[in-house]
Amino acid sequence: MTRIVRTVAELREQVRAWKAAGEQVGLIPTMGALHDGHLSLVRLAQTKVKRTVASVFVNPKQFAPHEDFDAYPRGETRDAQLLESAGCDLLFAPNAAEMYPQGFSTTINLTGVSEPLEGAARPQFFGGVATVVTKLLIQAEPDIAVFGEKDYQQLQVIRRVTRDLDLPVEIVGAPTARAEDGLALSSRNAYLSTEERAAAVALPNAMKAAIAAVQAGERVETAEAAGKAALEAAGFRQVDYFDFRDADDLSRLGPDALPSGARPRLLAAAWLGKTRLIDNMGA
Amino acid sequence: MTRIVRTVAELREQVRAWKAAGEQVGLIPTMGALHDGHLSLVRLAQTKVKRTVASVFVNPKQFAPHEDFDAYPRGETRDAQLLESAGCDLLFAPNAAEMYPQGFSTTINLTGVSEPLEGAARPQFFGGVATVVTKLLIQAEPDIAVFGEKDYQQLQVIRRVTRDLDLPVEIVGAPTARAEDGLALSSRNAYLSTEERAAAVALPNAMKAAIAAVQAGERVETAEAAGKAALEAAGFRQVDYFDFRDADDLSRLGPDALPSGARPRLLAAAWLGKTRLIDNMGA
Repeated sequence: MTRIVRTVAELREQVRAWKAAGEQVGLIPTMGALHDGHLSLVRLAQTKVKRTVASVFVNPKQFAPHEDFDAYPRGETRDAQLLESAGCDLLFAPNAAEMYPQGFSTTINLTGVSEPLEGAARPQFFGGVATVVTKLLIQAEPDIAVFGEKDYQQLQVIRRVTRDLDLPVEIVGAPTARAEDGLALSSRNAYLSTEERAAAVALPNAMKAAIAAVQAGERVETAEAAGKAALEAAGFRQVDYFDFRDADDLSRLGPDALPSGARPRLLAAAWLGKTRLIDNMGA
Repeated sequence: MTRIVRTVAELREQVRAWKAAGEQVGLIPTMGALHDGHLSLVRLAQTKVKRTVASVFVNPKQFAPHEDFDAYPRGETRDAQLLESAGCDLLFAPNAAEMYPQGFSTTINLTGVSEPLEGAARPQFFGGVATVVTKLLIQAEPDIAVFGEKDYQQLQVIRRVTRDLDLPVEIVGAPTARAEDGLALSSRNAYLSTEERAAAVALPNAMKAAIAAVQAGERVETAEAAGKAALEAAGFRQVDYFDFRDADDLSRLGPDALPSGARPRLLAAAWLGKTRLIDNMGA
């Protein structure tokens, strides 16, 4: 069975033992509710290092009071079984008191890449993400850490904070795992009703159409407007953003046609009923 | 000679080589302009670990625009000679581009212990300190790091951020080194004129008198007021604070006589001409 540890001391002892034996270690930080997307991160790590550690921690600091912290899906037994099936060596599952002991008072804040998109929609989010991921990287001392491109802005924030704080770890981005119809896998997909799940495919479809349009020379703002209209027509009740951005620093592209040499990435967030879906694609 | 390195890569290579050879490493972060106080930190580290690394970096992020960043005393040759005389093994002297490369956008912020006293007088200060010290601890990967009690609130901030981020290092506080007349050693003492240097002794004397008074049962606010009056009478033009505080969380004590079981620390900051002096003592 995949071994489960709950304290930083146990985690560090195991990782240091592996490293002392010359085995490299990869960390896959998660909030649990694991699906094939997470398991693809474990498998990618296994191609690069000998030992893999998944962490499961639903981080209260990255949820605002009105968000879905209490409702966020949890199920450690199933998570542990899935990690076992993927050959993951260790599950680190701390409780909140282990991560944020009495008197905890430190926050890691970023400017720049953290500010637009998710940062604008969820002001507390990336401070919470940067703080907990930095802690996990310091706790586990891995050689590599794997994050899904599904949360693309988060990946860029983590790359930035890792570089800025000189953390001795390689950050690896993994391609987004998708259902057969193209919907990005997400723990929050569990919130969708049958009808909503059927409508959700409009999100990747609208994104593919917008990318094809700008690649054919369409103006960026025209493609973005068409994408938003397609989502609303498919039953999405609100589109938070549907933006072509620079793939590196997430600065805005457009409104005109893309110049040659641009490195566009299309990022979108939209609400289907009570569920907020996000996705992104290279263009 | 004490070897000088300027890059994180060289620093880490040397420290890892020592650790691989079973030698523990102590870091002494400084802003240069070294004096006997700094050397006492090196000597304390040498009683605990085999290898010592001093860093010299005048950190722009902990100075406000109107403060003395440009005037802050610098002199690497003399610093290196002093470290050599103390038997320090390595001097890490990065430039600003090595510490804060293009696009740097991360800040570590604390609430609580960072807020009163120096935090109130210098709003940017502890964010800058916490960020650079965290970077140095991650860069150097020392077993211990030694900081002077002279900057007592800074020491408490560093203890807090180290615990909060799970940095695998022991933070060691070292007693304040003092001149024969009792003035705490400080690089900023170099700013004092001969007359100001003579008057400066009023600071430790007023502190000792206030401590003696509260130990004899005097009310805290009476002892604090007497201390401020003594400083003003001695020629200090402004007293930023002269406060009895809890030694651990720096919460305010008084106004009445101290209860038994209190862990008081007296902290003071006051201006003599253009120079701001700080000091603190256990009580």
